[in-house]
Amino acid sequence: MQRKSFDTMPCPIARSLERVGEWWSILILRDAFRGATRFDQFEKSLGIAPNMLTRRLNALVEAGLMQRHRYSDHPPRDEYLLTERGRDFRPVLWALLAFGNRHFAPEGPSVVIVDGETGELAEPILVDRRTLRPLTEPPFRTVHGAAAAEAAARAQAASASTAAPSASPSSAPSAAGPASPVPAATDLSTASSAGDAHV
Amino acid sequence: MQRKSFDTMPCPIARSLERVGEWWSILILRDAFRGATRFDQFEKSLGIAPNMLTRRLNALVEAGLMQRHRYSDHPPRDEYLLTERGRDFRPVLWALLAFGNRHFAPEGPSVVIVDGETGELAEPILVDRRTLRPLTEPPFRTVHGAAAAEAAARAQAASASTAAPSASPSSAPSAAGPASPVPAATDLSTASSAGDAHV
Repeated sequence: MQRKSFDTMPCPIARSLERVGEWWSILILRDAFRGATRFDQFEKSLGIAPNMLTRRLNALVEAGLMQRHRYSDHPPRDEYLLTERGRDFRPVLWALLAFGNRHFAPEGPSVVIVDGETGELAEPILVDRRTLRPLTEPPFRTVHGAAAAEAAARAQAASASTAAPSASPSSAPSAAGPASPVPAATDLSTASSAGDAHV
Repeated sequence: MQRKSFDTMPCPIARSLERVGEWWSILILRDAFRGATRFDQFEKSLGIAPNMLTRRLNALVEAGLMQRHRYSDHPPRDEYLLTERGRDFRPVLWALLAFGNRHFAPEGPSVVIVDGETGELAEPILVDRRTLRPLTEPPFRTVHGAAAAEAAARAQAASASTAAPSASPSSAPSAAGPASPVPAATDLSTASSAGDAHV
């Protein structure tokens, strides 16, 4: 069955899913973070059919999350490397990891995140980059349409008016890109979608 | 094509995907956070075929992320509500939202997260609950097998030895469950999988 394309939906969740919203793609990214680069490594780790693996790797390359790199000419062999965009997917993977450990690991977690220096267990939570407040509802909520455009424009203006881009403790590109001000929306349809989104 | 079941994989990412790793399921959850409860609301919002929607709602109920509630006996009508487990999926959705806004919203974001009290834009990043350090690699990394079991056991012991469960600023059940110590793994196969996982 041909599924509907989510790419025409303005929702950023739908658009992300259009690129990576598939079991295999997400597990391929997981294995790439684990160090896998070659076709046979992914194939063996996932037990995936070769034609399906080819399709998913091509889609990830096309979406800019991985890049193809020829590492041998005779015989011709490619490897697949995470791009910066691909690396930026890690918070989603780690949020999934935490969710899985909490809800679907009755025998105890088989994978955890630790501080590599101290060996201490880390427990991922989502916070606001600037204030470090946990993103819970309330008070945080989603808005879309005109409200989203306004919030983004205000944030950009605030960011432009300060010398330092942010007082963030993070220099992590994987978290949100280096001091990326959210671009102001200029062409959003506001007629039917202004206000709360509660996503 | 029948896909492989990920449920037998110990990886918590694979197990989460087994339950919600499908475009439609994730968008159904998104709409549920937005306030949708009734079949026709999901159907209209998603443009999804009724038989597919029925299947995905049933799967979400079976996985414990939503519950079915009869709100009318004549005629018989059910609504679908997020469970606590379902609400705990929000960090994954918001991480996807941030990823989509950064990479697939060239015209500007159509949905953003704001502080409902101040209207200020929030930018989600993943941090460690206890130390609030951004979860970037290095120093954070994933370990699995025996190393995961040991880290979890140490964390549980440390948690048990202090009166207050944690100095966390969060009381958010959606973030990681109230002071949930990660249960110690007792039955992990360690032969083939100890050490770094780099997920």
